[in-house]
Amino acid sequence: MSNVKFNVAVVGATGAVGEQIIGLLEKRDFPIAKLKLLSSPRSAGTVINFKGQDIVVEVATPESFEGIDIALFSAGGDVSKALAPHAVRHGAVCIDNTNAFRMDPGTPLVVPEVNPEQIDNHKGIIANPNCSTIQMVAALKPLQDKYGIARIIVSTYQAVSGAGARAIDELLRQSKEVLDGGEINPDILPVGSLPVKHQIAFNAIPQIDKFNENGYTLEEMKMVNETKKIMGDDSIEVTATCVRIPVVYGHSESIYVELKSDYELDEVRELLLNAPGITLQDDPSSQSYPLATHAAGKPDVFVGRLRRDLGAKRGLNMWVVSDNLMKGAAWNAVQIAEIIASQRS
Amino acid sequence: MSNVKFNVAVVGATGAVGEQIIGLLEKRDFPIAKLKLLSSPRSAGTVINFKGQDIVVEVATPESFEGIDIALFSAGGDVSKALAPHAVRHGAVCIDNTNAFRMDPGTPLVVPEVNPEQIDNHKGIIANPNCSTIQMVAALKPLQDKYGIARIIVSTYQAVSGAGARAIDELLRQSKEVLDGGEINPDILPVGSLPVKHQIAFNAIPQIDKFNENGYTLEEMKMVNETKKIMGDDSIEVTATCVRIPVVYGHSESIYVELKSDYELDEVRELLLNAPGITLQDDPSSQSYPLATHAAGKPDVFVGRLRRDLGAKRGLNMWVVSDNLMKGAAWNAVQIAEIIASQRS
Repeated sequence: MSNVKFNVAVVGATGAVGEQIIGLLEKRDFPIAKLKLLSSPRSAGTVINFKGQDIVVEVATPESFEGIDIALFSAGGDVSKALAPHAVRHGAVCIDNTNAFRMDPGTPLVVPEVNPEQIDNHKGIIANPNCSTIQMVAALKPLQDKYGIARIIVSTYQAVSGAGARAIDELLRQSKEVLDGGEINPDILPVGSLPVKHQIAFNAIPQIDKFNENGYTLEEMKMVNETKKIMGDDSIEVTATCVRIPVVYGHSESIYVELKSDYELDEVRELLLNAPGITLQDDPSSQSYPLATHAAGKPDVFVGRLRRDLGAKRGLNMWVVSDNLMKGAAWNAVQIAEIIASQRS
Repeated sequence: MSNVKFNVAVVGATGAVGEQIIGLLEKRDFPIAKLKLLSSPRSAGTVINFKGQDIVVEVATPESFEGIDIALFSAGGDVSKALAPHAVRHGAVCIDNTNAFRMDPGTPLVVPEVNPEQIDNHKGIIANPNCSTIQMVAALKPLQDKYGIARIIVSTYQAVSGAGARAIDELLRQSKEVLDGGEINPDILPVGSLPVKHQIAFNAIPQIDKFNENGYTLEEMKMVNETKKIMGDDSIEVTATCVRIPVVYGHSESIYVELKSDYELDEVRELLLNAPGITLQDDPSSQSYPLATHAAGKPDVFVGRLRRDLGAKRGLNMWVVSDNLMKGAAWNAVQIAEIIASQRS
């Protein structure tokens, strides 16, 4: 063990992901010299306890990053665009949880189980992928390495926590209203900034984020584009349908993957059993398969319901579940921070 | 209009589907001479109002069908197996909502929008397909006719009402328990007769019905086999992932279909707009797409989120929603009864 310690800033410290990041930094005993917690003026002044010490959240400004070594951003794309360049100017490495830089060709987009080598190519900013993409590529990486991947057809079952704390409140409030037979007044979902709202309680909404001109949502296009970038293969065909369902924590995904060569199901099981960050839960005889309620709060990506396409012999179905705030956001970011820290120690 | 009227029996009259069937017979003003309502001894004696007249539910026995012209069964596969042959012996045409005869080569499996001509081939029994299959084939039929269908990859988002009234109670009770912070004791889902139970409230369970030896559930295999039979094409490759989600009424399906020839998206829209039983809801600009809460209680199959696969040019994504107790069960059965009635009038 080395004694090198780092000055770390968390931007968006009072948000759902920021909170998880702070919890993980404490739990993982990240080598911190000084922890700076930053937020918008609205949330500044909040006191957050870290390892028994009260830290007052400060307003994030361009000069907040003086002396910072590692800055973790999760306060929205606009904040990252405005402040990350200043953090870089002050010499910090930024790990950005937003969409701001993900598809920028000069910014590595990293899932440590898939392309950790990309971390070394950063010019100050490393982007954390979208939650629904992270768990999918983590589960598919062992298959890519062994067989190659031709195409992916994915349908998601996404938790409301991916839309923020207010969406969680809305689901819980609406559920109670439906159970009580009261009136439903959707206010946030599917997309806060769009005019039309739909009931999420006891429903399934096939819209996450705004629509692109090609008929796909931005969330669906993230799964297409980010997958190609992370897996380093533009030839992988991805088609996605992203759906919000009444779950609080944990995204589930029905993934159909067509491999480039023949496979044996037992071999796939073996690969996933030994893959980093993956927990195989695949025993129909005991009705064991991944469930959002089980994955919630855990760092792993859970994989099960493995079965061969009865038609196309290179087709494989799988059910992949992970906590969207953990591996889908905070834990992936802290993993990247740990790699950076270990390189400098 | 003819004046021919029919003696009709509803077996399973007190169940969720039976109730819908009786309501539809009344609403559609089905030409009924006498309506006989039948059930198990447990529910016999229940009084049900039909067109202002109280009808006492009787115990279903082999001799209940004397003089009956049309018998609608929805009391479970065992009841259909035991009693439908007796109804046939008495000269009735049986429309069976259970799994008992669906894959029997001598029994037509009918969705009126897809293969109504099969009704004429019956030998006394006409099978009503599984709910998740019905809405899918209804939506795909216009595409099969125009382009041919090579393969289907479907992921479902199924309502608990498909598992019966006790599953609805369980979802509502569990939801309340979660909201109140109480203890959860799953009792019914995913499969009443299997030992392991999972929480359905705020969760997604990738198991509907028991597991087959090939790793697929019986529900998934129904979608594979029934689709081929109804569409009359064994070469259609179907792969399905069936998932129960916390919705009360209305199954949603993310369907990826690969056509046999090139298509234009506008042409597909036009075909669906003019297809019987289909309501096209596909306007991203107004955030309009099918939703379970909207489809509940309606007879139609709602189709939207139409978009071209960005890779395979014959690939098409669609989002298909229908009330599993209506078109998925009661309405499809009453449609078949109406065709039989019109043939005899």
